[in-house]
Amino acid sequence: MSQKKVVIALGGNALEEKGKPSTAENQLQVVKRTAERLARISAAGYEIAIVHGNGPQVGRILLASETAHNVTPRMPFDVCGAMSQGYIGYHIQQAMKAALTRAGRGDIPVVSLVTQVVVDPEDPAFETPSKPIGIFYTEEEAWKLEQESGYIMKEDAGRGWRRVVPSPKPWEIVEFETLKRLWDSTIVILCGGGGIPVVKHADGILEGVAAVIDKDLAASLAARSIGADLLMILTEVERVAIHYQRPDQRDLDTMTAAEAEQYMADGEFAPGSMLPKVQAAVEFVRSQPGRQAVITSLDRALEALEGRAGTRIVPNSL
Amino acid sequence: MSQKKVVIALGGNALEEKGKPSTAENQLQVVKRTAERLARISAAGYEIAIVHGNGPQVGRILLASETAHNVTPRMPFDVCGAMSQGYIGYHIQQAMKAALTRAGRGDIPVVSLVTQVVVDPEDPAFETPSKPIGIFYTEEEAWKLEQESGYIMKEDAGRGWRRVVPSPKPWEIVEFETLKRLWDSTIVILCGGGGIPVVKHADGILEGVAAVIDKDLAASLAARSIGADLLMILTEVERVAIHYQRPDQRDLDTMTAAEAEQYMADGEFAPGSMLPKVQAAVEFVRSQPGRQAVITSLDRALEALEGRAGTRIVPNSL
Repeated sequence: MSQKKVVIALGGNALEEKGKPSTAENQLQVVKRTAERLARISAAGYEIAIVHGNGPQVGRILLASETAHNVTPRMPFDVCGAMSQGYIGYHIQQAMKAALTRAGRGDIPVVSLVTQVVVDPEDPAFETPSKPIGIFYTEEEAWKLEQESGYIMKEDAGRGWRRVVPSPKPWEIVEFETLKRLWDSTIVILCGGGGIPVVKHADGILEGVAAVIDKDLAASLAARSIGADLLMILTEVERVAIHYQRPDQRDLDTMTAAEAEQYMADGEFAPGSMLPKVQAAVEFVRSQPGRQAVITSLDRALEALEGRAGTRIVPNSL
Repeated sequence: MSQKKVVIALGGNALEEKGKPSTAENQLQVVKRTAERLARISAAGYEIAIVHGNGPQVGRILLASETAHNVTPRMPFDVCGAMSQGYIGYHIQQAMKAALTRAGRGDIPVVSLVTQVVVDPEDPAFETPSKPIGIFYTEEEAWKLEQESGYIMKEDAGRGWRRVVPSPKPWEIVEFETLKRLWDSTIVILCGGGGIPVVKHADGILEGVAAVIDKDLAASLAARSIGADLLMILTEVERVAIHYQRPDQRDLDTMTAAEAEQYMADGEFAPGSMLPKVQAAVEFVRSQPGRQAVITSLDRALEALEGRAGTRIVPNSL
């Protein structure tokens, strides 16, 4: 096993099933199935860390907070992110422990870290916040929120007004030391939802900001920081495709970082969907010789580790 | 410094200021002051772990969830607890890092662990749930919730009906291995709100339950498990008193475990207030020779470590 240290990024379908009510009880059932697959990877001898998304979950936390704001104060968005890390991390660590126990590896500790991730206040994303969060408002309500709370509100495709936040690039995992100390022995769940975004002031003091960090980019940062061998991004499809949903669609077994960059330049991948995954993969592969990434589905994850499924992103020099 | 390893339990006043709006922004300000005091303890060379309460916070999370249940599904109570760990842990770890940086010890890692704590399903507390949580309902609403959600509802002193949950004794910290691995190097925040209560099935599988674990008892369990020298319980008063709020009130510098037990038997300490603190202290002191506990205020914490403030609970044999 040459690629032993693997950072795994879990997509939304690893946490929720489309078409089912978005209750915590249903989430736990989906997470249990996800954990069975991840436990097999761990039991096969891979050292894994897990990064997960939080889009729908943090959306509902914010929705509850906004709906109830007349009876209990609104939660700032960084705090909503922290809450989603507790929520999802709890489910994953509980389900992972159960799955490991069934796989005869109940001795492996599993833990979720509340994780802050440093972003650059000069990141151009702060100039053009574009990530909609929370509920829809009327124009009048939106104007009021802009005045009262300093939110930035945008009209959303004729459906009403929503708050938008920036999606800056992740630069540093604040709790990285802990990941390092635990990595060899423990399955660490970290950077939930991409991490709680914070800016670092000149004196080193951190402050939370209302932003969303892409979880695949956060996973790439975690993988680079820890010196992982492989970044594995799990999503709904087994392989990355070019000419996606066209008659000449082609599913890729492998692409070099250079090819991936050309495909991105050609607009082959959908922003907010496959594009950030390929970006995260290329970033990791380019960071140091010997590093690879793989994009595949949860169901094929173990086969993909063995090179029998998924799309491998490899260095140009391969 | 003979008592180097200290588990610190933070009371509600370390997180919120009475009379101020209970916003996350205000909490962060209070937590910053708390962190300044804890950072001094750490910078003085003590190895600390931090356990915190979550009563008002989890109450507000539940309130938002209940208020918004027509637009987004109700959160189970164990998940609300996990969310409060993310929320409060995030604030404490951010503020601790800032305070340590100012104290010249920004090198010390600080991290919050999402923590599950095993309770016994046969605990008598499950027979008589008594801890009220969440909002008030009418009798009719209460009856409906009992039928629909299996909640246990009780009439609360003429003010309406509330859901009640049991408060069982904590038996095992699921993520204890991680505390052990990190203890020497890292300030660990764990067992927030007493921990997320789970029961362990015969096959070792864990399942969350709707319950509240006393955070001082959880801190005592953490201190016993890790082999701490001292359990420090921080609250609003500098010392434990007998004949409390009577003309002959006497503040105690020291009490033996046997004296403490006698005072408890005499009903000297208020249930849900000083009583669980003294219970937790006695439990820790009795667990092994050489262990002591101290109950004091946040402001006097460092002095209390040096034996110059607070109420020490010592073994009988001292």
